[in-house]
Amino acid sequence: MRSTTAFAPATVSNVGCGFDVLGFALDGPGDEVTARLAPRDVTIDDIQNDAGRLPREAARNTAGVAAQALLRALGDARGVALSIRKGLPLASGLGGSAASAVAAVVAVDALLEARAPRDLLIACALEGERLGAGSAHPDNVAPSVCGGFVLVRHPSPLDIIELPIPPGLTSVVVHPELEIVTAHARALLGETVPLADAIRQWANMGALVDGLHRSDFAQIGRALEDAIAEPRRAPLIPGLAAIKQAAADAGALGAGISGSGPSLFALCRGREIADLVAEAMTAAVARHIGGASQVYVSSIAPAGARVVSACAS
Amino acid sequence: MRSTTAFAPATVSNVGCGFDVLGFALDGPGDEVTARLAPRDVTIDDIQNDAGRLPREAARNTAGVAAQALLRALGDARGVALSIRKGLPLASGLGGSAASAVAAVVAVDALLEARAPRDLLIACALEGERLGAGSAHPDNVAPSVCGGFVLVRHPSPLDIIELPIPPGLTSVVVHPELEIVTAHARALLGETVPLADAIRQWANMGALVDGLHRSDFAQIGRALEDAIAEPRRAPLIPGLAAIKQAAADAGALGAGISGSGPSLFALCRGREIADLVAEAMTAAVARHIGGASQVYVSSIAPAGARVVSACAS
Repeated sequence: MRSTTAFAPATVSNVGCGFDVLGFALDGPGDEVTARLAPRDVTIDDIQNDAGRLPREAARNTAGVAAQALLRALGDARGVALSIRKGLPLASGLGGSAASAVAAVVAVDALLEARAPRDLLIACALEGERLGAGSAHPDNVAPSVCGGFVLVRHPSPLDIIELPIPPGLTSVVVHPELEIVTAHARALLGETVPLADAIRQWANMGALVDGLHRSDFAQIGRALEDAIAEPRRAPLIPGLAAIKQAAADAGALGAGISGSGPSLFALCRGREIADLVAEAMTAAVARHIGGASQVYVSSIAPAGARVVSACAS
Repeated sequence: MRSTTAFAPATVSNVGCGFDVLGFALDGPGDEVTARLAPRDVTIDDIQNDAGRLPREAARNTAGVAAQALLRALGDARGVALSIRKGLPLASGLGGSAASAVAAVVAVDALLEARAPRDLLIACALEGERLGAGSAHPDNVAPSVCGGFVLVRHPSPLDIIELPIPPGLTSVVVHPELEIVTAHARALLGETVPLADAIRQWANMGALVDGLHRSDFAQIGRALEDAIAEPRRAPLIPGLAAIKQAAADAGALGAGISGSGPSLFALCRGREIADLVAEAMTAAVARHIGGASQVYVSSIAPAGARVVSACAS
C-alpha cells in the first residue's frame, strides 16, 4: 500500500526576547509521521515512543487534527491512516506537538500529491498544535516547517520571515526531568506587562535580528534577554539562574527557557564551545534539578520538515 | 574670539513599532549652537527663533545643561558661552530639545578640542534633553548624534545600533499647529500594557529591522504599526486615522506620530511618492486640524551632528 513518511524537526521558541513570535529548528531531533491512504477520515494506527500517553483518537491527537485540517482545506474526501514515531520527549518545551502536527501535514500533502502552499501547511499544523498547547502562535510550527530561524510577524493572516543564520551559530538544549504544564506556564504571565519590560523586549528583538544579519555574535548574546516570560516563569525551574550562569561561564552567548520549558537552550559560537556549554549545563541541571536529562547539541537546521521515504507498494 | 558652531538634525522617534528605542535623523531641518570660551560656567548669550519661550538660564536650558554635563565629564574648568539658533518649531515632536542639546555638546567638544567618545556626547546630550522631555531614552539624541536609523538596545550602559538605510527610503514629516505636552502624552500610556499588544510590537520591531537590512519596502510598511503608543495617544490628534489613510492612499509605506507628536511622519519609497504623500498629508491635516503646518520631505540623514564652522579670530 502506498505510504509516505515525513520528518519534522524539534524547535526552540521564544528564544529570549521573542515570546510567541520567534523560533528556530534543531538539526537532529524530531518526530516522524507515516501516512497511508484509507477509506475515509483520519485514523491513528500507531504511536511509538510516547509510553502510551498520547490520545489515539484522531480528533484529540495533534497529528490527527492537523491531517483533518489539511484534508478539509484541500476538499479531499479521501481518508488517511497515520503512524507516529515520537523522537522528542513529551511536554519538553521543544515543540513536540508542533513537530507531530507538521510531520503529519507534510506526509499527507505528499501522499495526496497536493503540493499545498507553505502557509496552508503551517495553518493546518497550527490547528493541530493548538490542541496540545492551547496557543495560536506558530512560533514552533513555522520554524518546524521552514527550518532555520523564523520570525512570525503576524499569525493571521500569516506573515513569517526567515531570518539569516550566522555561520557557526550552534544550539545547546538540555531537557531536564521536570514536568511543566504549558497552560500553567502561560497563566503566570498574566494579561498585562509593565511597559518598561515590554520596551526592553522590543529593543532586544531589534538587536537580535540586526545581530543575525551582521553575524555579530556579541550583540546576539546581549540581545538574548527575556524581560517578559522568563522572570515570571523562573520559579518553575529550580536553579534557573545558576544553570544560565553555568552556560555563560562556559562561553554561551546567551541562554534561557525553550518555549514554556522545562527544556533550557543556549546559543553558542561554534561546536567546540557548544560542547563545553552542554557539559556545564548538564552538570548544573543535575545539581539543581536532579534526575536524568537529555542534551542536544546542533546547528540551526538549515531545512525544515521533509519527506524522508515514500513507498508505492 | 574663538568660536565653534555645530548643527544637529531633527529626528523622528518611536517610528511605529519602536517606542522609546528607535529613531531616525532628517536630512535638512535642525538646530545650531555656537560655543565660545568664557571665563567660567556655562551661559546662554542668545537664542534665535524661539519667540522668547526658551529659558535663558543655562541650568534650565537643554543646551546649557548638556554643555555643563560635558564640561563636568571632561573635568574641564573652563567656561563656555552658547548662542542657540532654533531651526525647529518648539514642542513639535521632532526632537528639538535633543537637537539643541546635541549641537551644544558637539560645539563645545570641538571648541575644547576634547574629542570625547560618541557615547559620552550622547550621555551628556541626554542629560540636557531629560530637562525638556522628562525622558531618559536617547531615541532622539542617538540618531541626532549618529545620523541614520538608530536602535537604542539599552540606554545605560548605552548600547546603540546603527541600522542600514535602504536606498531611496524617504521621510515625510508634517508639523500641524497643535500643542501636545510630552508629559501628558506619556501619562496616556499608563504603567502597563496588554501582553497581546506588546507581542505585536516586538514582532513588528523584528520585521522592521529585517526589512531595513533586506531593503524590503513592503515588509517595512507592514511593520510600521504601533500597537502601544499610537492607539492611546490618538485622541490628542484630531483626524489621525484619516491623515494616515491619506498618506497610505498616496503611496506611503506607513505613517504615524513622530515622537509624542503633534508632528506626523510617513516613510516612502523614493522622492516622487514622498512628494505626493506630503501633499496628501498636508491637505488632510488642513481638513482635520486646520491652521498652518510645516512639511519636511527628506531622505534619512546619512550623517548626524557636525561642526559647520569654526573661527579662530
